Amino acid sequence: MDPDFRAHAHEIVDWIADYLEEIERFPVASQVHPGDILNRLPGAPPDHGEPFDAILKDFESIIVPGMTHWQHPSFFAYFPANSSPPSLYAEMLTAALGAQCMSWVTSPSAAELEERMMQWLRDMWGLPREWDGVIQDTASTATLCSILTAREVRSKNAINRRGFSSKDRFTVYCSAEAHSSIEKAVRIAGIGRENLRKIGVDDNFAMRPELLEEAIRRDADAGYTPLCVVDALGTTGSTAVDPLERIGAIARRHGLWLHVDAAFAGTALVLPEYRHLLNGIDCADTMVINPHKWMFTNFDCSAYFVKDPDALVGTFEILPEYLKTHERSEVNNYRDWGIQLGRRFRALKLWFVIRTYGVEGIRAKVREHIRIASELAENIRNEKDFDILAPVWCNVICFRYHPAGVSEGEQLNALNMSLMERLNASGKLYISHTKLDGKVALRLVLGQSNVEERHASAAWQMIVRTARE
Amino acid sequence: MDPDFRAHAHEIVDWIADYLEEIERFPVASQVHPGDILNRLPGAPPDHGEPFDAILKDFESIIVPGMTHWQHPSFFAYFPANSSPPSLYAEMLTAALGAQCMSWVTSPSAAELEERMMQWLRDMWGLPREWDGVIQDTASTATLCSILTAREVRSKNAINRRGFSSKDRFTVYCSAEAHSSIEKAVRIAGIGRENLRKIGVDDNFAMRPELLEEAIRRDADAGYTPLCVVDALGTTGSTAVDPLERIGAIARRHGLWLHVDAAFAGTALVLPEYRHLLNGIDCADTMVINPHKWMFTNFDCSAYFVKDPDALVGTFEILPEYLKTHERSEVNNYRDWGIQLGRRFRALKLWFVIRTYGVEGIRAKVREHIRIASELAENIRNEKDFDILAPVWCNVICFRYHPAGVSEGEQLNALNMSLMERLNASGKLYISHTKLDGKVALRLVLGQSNVEERHASAAWQMIVRTARE
Repeated sequence: MDPDFRAHAHEIVDWIADYLEEIERFPVASQVHPGDILNRLPGAPPDHGEPFDAILKDFESIIVPGMTHWQHPSFFAYFPANSSPPSLYAEMLTAALGAQCMSWVTSPSAAELEERMMQWLRDMWGLPREWDGVIQDTASTATLCSILTAREVRSKNAINRRGFSSKDRFTVYCSAEAHSSIEKAVRIAGIGRENLRKIGVDDNFAMRPELLEEAIRRDADAGYTPLCVVDALGTTGSTAVDPLERIGAIARRHGLWLHVDAAFAGTALVLPEYRHLLNGIDCADTMVINPHKWMFTNFDCSAYFVKDPDALVGTFEILPEYLKTHERSEVNNYRDWGIQLGRRFRALKLWFVIRTYGVEGIRAKVREHIRIASELAENIRNEKDFDILAPVWCNVICFRYHPAGVSEGEQLNALNMSLMERLNASGKLYISHTKLDGKVALRLVLGQSNVEERHASAAWQMIVRTARE
Repeated sequence: MDPDFRAHAHEIVDWIADYLEEIERFPVASQVHPGDILNRLPGAPPDHGEPFDAILKDFESIIVPGMTHWQHPSFFAYFPANSSPPSLYAEMLTAALGAQCMSWVTSPSAAELEERMMQWLRDMWGLPREWDGVIQDTASTATLCSILTAREVRSKNAINRRGFSSKDRFTVYCSAEAHSSIEKAVRIAGIGRENLRKIGVDDNFAMRPELLEEAIRRDADAGYTPLCVVDALGTTGSTAVDPLERIGAIARRHGLWLHVDAAFAGTALVLPEYRHLLNGIDCADTMVINPHKWMFTNFDCSAYFVKDPDALVGTFEILPEYLKTHERSEVNNYRDWGIQLGRRFRALKLWFVIRTYGVEGIRAKVREHIRIASELAENIRNEKDFDILAPVWCNVICFRYHPAGVSEGEQLNALNMSLMERLNASGKLYISHTKLDGKVALRLVLGQSNVEERHASAAWQMIVRTARE
């Protein structure tokens, strides 16, 4: 062991503590230009080792200025990738243990803690008690696992065995507002994006179930095998909620696999007042919710729930000699629950986070975010020259500046894009955008771990001032 | 910010430093039984928050006894998942920054440092200067990306677009000793495991190129489209090296995509004396080497190299409105270089590791591991009742106990399995096994960051003593 390790690691902790204390003094979005960082990094690696101090100094002077600060409370863009003190402690310990958690025997605690944490999350969020779960890296991976499992269940594992045949003409369904990872998964799984039906949405940007059923019928009549529907519990654009109960009934009636993508908004299920969103969940086969988005747990940590773990394992299991162990039937070997063989010890940060805050503590933080968003939405609604473009039911606000005299269309869209760019260039806040029904919408997500009312107020004042300038 | 963060994080550092100093006092492989850990974890999450001290105490008393200690220098099993002080510093900083590095704009430093680190690695390992690269989580993912890219290049992106048609009858080739991730990828990609040809190996467990070419010809004659061959530069079982130059020539002659899986042994390419292993690399399209295995960098960190980044991006790119940014043409948006949208800041640990040791420092450590392995192999060879079962060219030794009077077959295999179990149950060392030509081989990998000659000697003495008891 390097004798300086202890001193250096303490130095790193002090750097981190200083950084987190002063984080509001950094510009939220990095202000560098393409190539600025690359040009400061030597083209060749050093032949000989360099001292710790030199590396840490370069980290501060080269890397940090090129970071967009996701842990800044005025980070309102995309979806957050949250952190918290207990999550950081666990990440430090995880790195130190350095365990590769592919199977039970390679780290029994990791396997069994993961099993328990997925039960805790399942129960905290009110999901069916008979479901199992596994931690994936991202919702992209979880959704891909779901579609692959659907493919194998429907083909009775024939595609894994012999590949696609001319009879395997599958179609997959999601709303026109659903996440791009679904199209990516459909492509990877060999189904083809032309066989992904993007179903029209209603005025709230939620899937129209009658159009879903029409599409399924049309495809079945045309000789396709309707395979899977993905229900969004909170779309990425506007957190629109597809009507799960009706979609679930359609999936059941037509024998489709049902995956629920609640990657961001699913964390709100910790609140009893949102449990009604789960009506119809019994028809679902799989579901994904990312604690790394809104539940104060470092990226990556994506909770993937399955009704039938045997179907999942049947899709992915391979057992070469060098991985054979005794304990298979009694324990979960999570390498068989997904794509990657190697796995980090991700359950530890969930354990630290949930125990540090308790369920009530998490509820309080989530409720506060929703309250702040609801108040800010009210303020936006009260201004004549601003529009709210989608329902605000949790903590995401889609809005735009719409001054008198600027008519709908490209001009208004360009105005809002340039407003966003000016705001982000200020370094005081960071927002992103989407398009809803052809209209550019600015997105403000009130979900960063440390966001408070004052950050929302300051952002809003700045938005109004910048817009009207 | 939690006012106790600084103090608690320092406490964690002290725990980590103590742990790493005393790691040789822990049993290498955990001695718990299935369910031991699970039963000590409450079935329900706490309603209210718990104090830091209680959680850290439970971590020590519940989690640590259930860990297999991958950073113990007598961890000789599987392939290592290494760590090092600079890698730990970087993991701490990465967790604190908490950036989600899907695109340039969400963290410019992460994107540009990744670009530079992949250039450094490419040059350190002597790969073609015109190649590009991207960090993936694991070699499983990298190999899947390669096979998917091969599929799309060959089908001119038709499978991404319209799914498989009856004309798309692909075959993929690897040696019978190649890694299970290839079969997993072939299944996921919709090709089917029956269309994966496992080519026979020679006495050194390396692919026989004449059998490869025969299989390609036979498949082409039968109406298949031979798509891709995976060349193992170091198999998982015995680090066998497939003859790249001959396989590359065959791939080129028949128009096959060539992926090189050097996940573990590729780190040895940092040594000039091993560069000859790259003869033929110009015929390759993609290659994977995992710094998280043997290059002192925490899991996960898998370096995936590509000759044609446009082919990779063409396979995975999707651009929904909420991800559109200005800088696309000037910078790399790594979300389009693989499966996951969300990405950790993995380049930072490579930067810390390479700068701390320098290329010469890494060479010295890798050479020392190979030297220790070579001496140990010599000792094993000198004992009449032990066999070496595969060539030892780097730091992996496949051997077995073979006392006089025990004949080849099940009895000898069972004897070695039980020897392995007794050794691992001692907690003094941890080895794993494989099967080579039907024979159970015990695998000893001399690659843990901190392994020294004394660990190898102690292990060997214990193996001899235990075997002869």
